[in-house]
Amino acid sequence: MKAAVLYSGGKDSSLMAVILDRLGYDVELITINFGIFNSSIPAQESAKSLGFKHKVLNLDKTILTDAVDMIIRDNFPNNGINHIHHMVLEHLADEYQVIADGTRREDRIPKLKFSEIQSLEDRKGIQYLNLTGIGYKTINDTSDRLFTLQKSESNIHNSSDYEMEIRVLLKEKGYDTNEIFPQHIQSRVIGWKENE
Amino acid sequence: MKAAVLYSGGKDSSLMAVILDRLGYDVELITINFGIFNSSIPAQESAKSLGFKHKVLNLDKTILTDAVDMIIRDNFPNNGINHIHHMVLEHLADEYQVIADGTRREDRIPKLKFSEIQSLEDRKGIQYLNLTGIGYKTINDTSDRLFTLQKSESNIHNSSDYEMEIRVLLKEKGYDTNEIFPQHIQSRVIGWKENE
Repeated sequence: MKAAVLYSGGKDSSLMAVILDRLGYDVELITINFGIFNSSIPAQESAKSLGFKHKVLNLDKTILTDAVDMIIRDNFPNNGINHIHHMVLEHLADEYQVIADGTRREDRIPKLKFSEIQSLEDRKGIQYLNLTGIGYKTINDTSDRLFTLQKSESNIHNSSDYEMEIRVLLKEKGYDTNEIFPQHIQSRVIGWKENE
Repeated sequence: MKAAVLYSGGKDSSLMAVILDRLGYDVELITINFGIFNSSIPAQESAKSLGFKHKVLNLDKTILTDAVDMIIRDNFPNNGINHIHHMVLEHLADEYQVIADGTRREDRIPKLKFSEIQSLEDRKGIQYLNLTGIGYKTINDTSDRLFTLQKSESNIHNSSDYEMEIRVLLKEKGYDTNEIFPQHIQSRVIGWKENE
């Protein structure tokens, strides 16, 4: 059975893909783009390095511009990012029967509540999975064992998170993106470990 | 790295074991016994049918008798079963670095809260995993694909759940166990599907 995994090129979404693949699903990695900036290249490269199928799903720019309006109003990214994630899953659920993302136990944003997951599954007749049963220590250990990782400060050239197109749009509007998104170290998957 | 999976012989704990095995963990299936009734045989047979290592961990009978006292007082099993599960994980965390169970998204009992998981991991310096990121539809589909299942009304001869020794003790004390535990269909794993 086909399974679509929302994919950023990071270790969380890569691990979700590996779990589904090793359980026998036909995995398709999906990176979202809103036509503001082509942020999907790092994810595409990571997907290729692992040998997974990869697609870019182009969604309506207004999803992103609405999110950026929320972020400017809140001076805080959480509601905007959650808005994008919900809209993305709604679209994905129209095209795939099994959809997944790499949100893990400690993640707060983006994250679906239990009731939101049930609503999504029931309304769309689909199945949704994530990594909520697994904590960051286990995800770090496992991905260090499975993947070759490249760690660097996240920027628009090494990540395909929603954050990247948000940053571009905020900058265009004259906002200081480093104030809204603190710099953080990004672990990008660039291949399997030799023995995998 | 070694990982201990609390194991009943059912599809949830079997799936947890398969995921960890396919991510490269050295999986040991653990079935708990409190010395009231040897309920571990179905789990032992299921573990053997999948080719996993299996151990019976004998714990202090008072954990079970305390739980049964709670169940009689409440006339409802939830608090008693949660008590057992918490005590079991505390013991397991003293012996293993990575511990897991098959609780899934919809499960309410037994289930650890987010704060209880963090406390367990921090106090014991261990990692805990479960299937909270996966719903019953996906677990059913996947286990139907992976495992040969035997479905029948659950009884003390075909399940190694905590419930079985609780039933024996309640019966000894003269209680009607069918009133406290409604009959339900039990899916026991009895082997791999041919192509797995």
